[in-house]
Amino acid sequence: MMMSLDGYTAGPEQSVENPFGLGGMRLNEWLFPLEAFRKMHGEEGGEVNASTPIVEGWFENIGATVMGRNMFGGGPGPWGTNPWTGYWGEDPPYHHPVFVLTHHAREPLQMQGGTTFHFVTDGIESALEQARNAAEGKDVSLGGGAATVQPYLAAGLVDEMLISLVPVFLGAGTRLFDNLGPNPPRPRQIEAIAAPGVTHLRYRF
Amino acid sequence: MMMSLDGYTAGPEQSVENPFGLGGMRLNEWLFPLEAFRKMHGEEGGEVNASTPIVEGWFENIGATVMGRNMFGGGPGPWGTNPWTGYWGEDPPYHHPVFVLTHHAREPLQMQGGTTFHFVTDGIESALEQARNAAEGKDVSLGGGAATVQPYLAAGLVDEMLISLVPVFLGAGTRLFDNLGPNPPRPRQIEAIAAPGVTHLRYRF
Repeated sequence: MMMSLDGYTAGPEQSVENPFGLGGMRLNEWLFPLEAFRKMHGEEGGEVNASTPIVEGWFENIGATVMGRNMFGGGPGPWGTNPWTGYWGEDPPYHHPVFVLTHHAREPLQMQGGTTFHFVTDGIESALEQARNAAEGKDVSLGGGAATVQPYLAAGLVDEMLISLVPVFLGAGTRLFDNLGPNPPRPRQIEAIAAPGVTHLRYRF
Repeated sequence: MMMSLDGYTAGPEQSVENPFGLGGMRLNEWLFPLEAFRKMHGEEGGEVNASTPIVEGWFENIGATVMGRNMFGGGPGPWGTNPWTGYWGEDPPYHHPVFVLTHHAREPLQMQGGTTFHFVTDGIESALEQARNAAEGKDVSLGGGAATVQPYLAAGLVDEMLISLVPVFLGAGTRLFDNLGPNPPRPRQIEAIAAPGVTHLRYRF
């Protein structure tokens, strides 16, 4: 998860056109120039720095991903007749099963390169169980956004957390660490890596 | 400033008896075992780790400190007949002039070891100007708390910021990066230092 110094993962007024909200694209400024990121999206060239192993590690030993409907995108409500297929084009960078939490049932959506989106309507425990089974012994990644991470954290279902802390103030928007309930988990700090324009913080529970 | 992972510098229900609020003492757990901290308070022994140079640097080249009434302590309102003299005993660890922002005028309070508390009733710019003069070319430290840091940040009067980010969730209390206004400053990340139970993040503006 990328987080601003004042705790936001997205600015205000998130929309399909502006998924990170007002000012929220600044959370990605450290990421876009990286060779490791450009390669994921089929582009050549780019920078190599202390963020490189972090970004390369995003999909290391990951067998399945869970994400919220808002991160999958396309706006809230029923899927409609020409449904949204995600922000990532025909060949998403996951290359494994992705479980999308939603209130609206939908048939699985098979993309190129091994990514299939499965739409889960019966809650976070079910999505995690399905993802664990699909991961076949590899790790399950919790992609986001904040509204999806929060109930997993509150339920004690997160083992490890990687926060990329970006030196911007968004001032408003969606906070990552909200709604954690009366007994939030206590993270143990594992590592902190300074890189250009970002600090990567890893915690375990 | 010490800050929880969810952005708080103190828990809820701050009081004279509990200046860090409910759960807020957990923000200091990394600090108390350190030799560098114990020495400041006249105690011997303790640990040396990656936090040591950070704590030793707190008062390096500092000629004056500005702090809020809440950090000085004693509760709000007029000073009364037997006024509070601070949380730090007869020989506070500052050893230089300290300017306390307050709505209630009071004569300067001279302590042992070179610390004199001056009480400033005409606002943050005045306190900074008085502190700059008193510092005689050295740096001015902005001690806190959050309610004092915020207007200085919003006014663009902060040059450098050291955040000690502690892996706890307080869930409620006083947020550090609140009320920064429509044009908050943009920090540049200078360093990030991982230490046991804390990450020290330094930013410049």
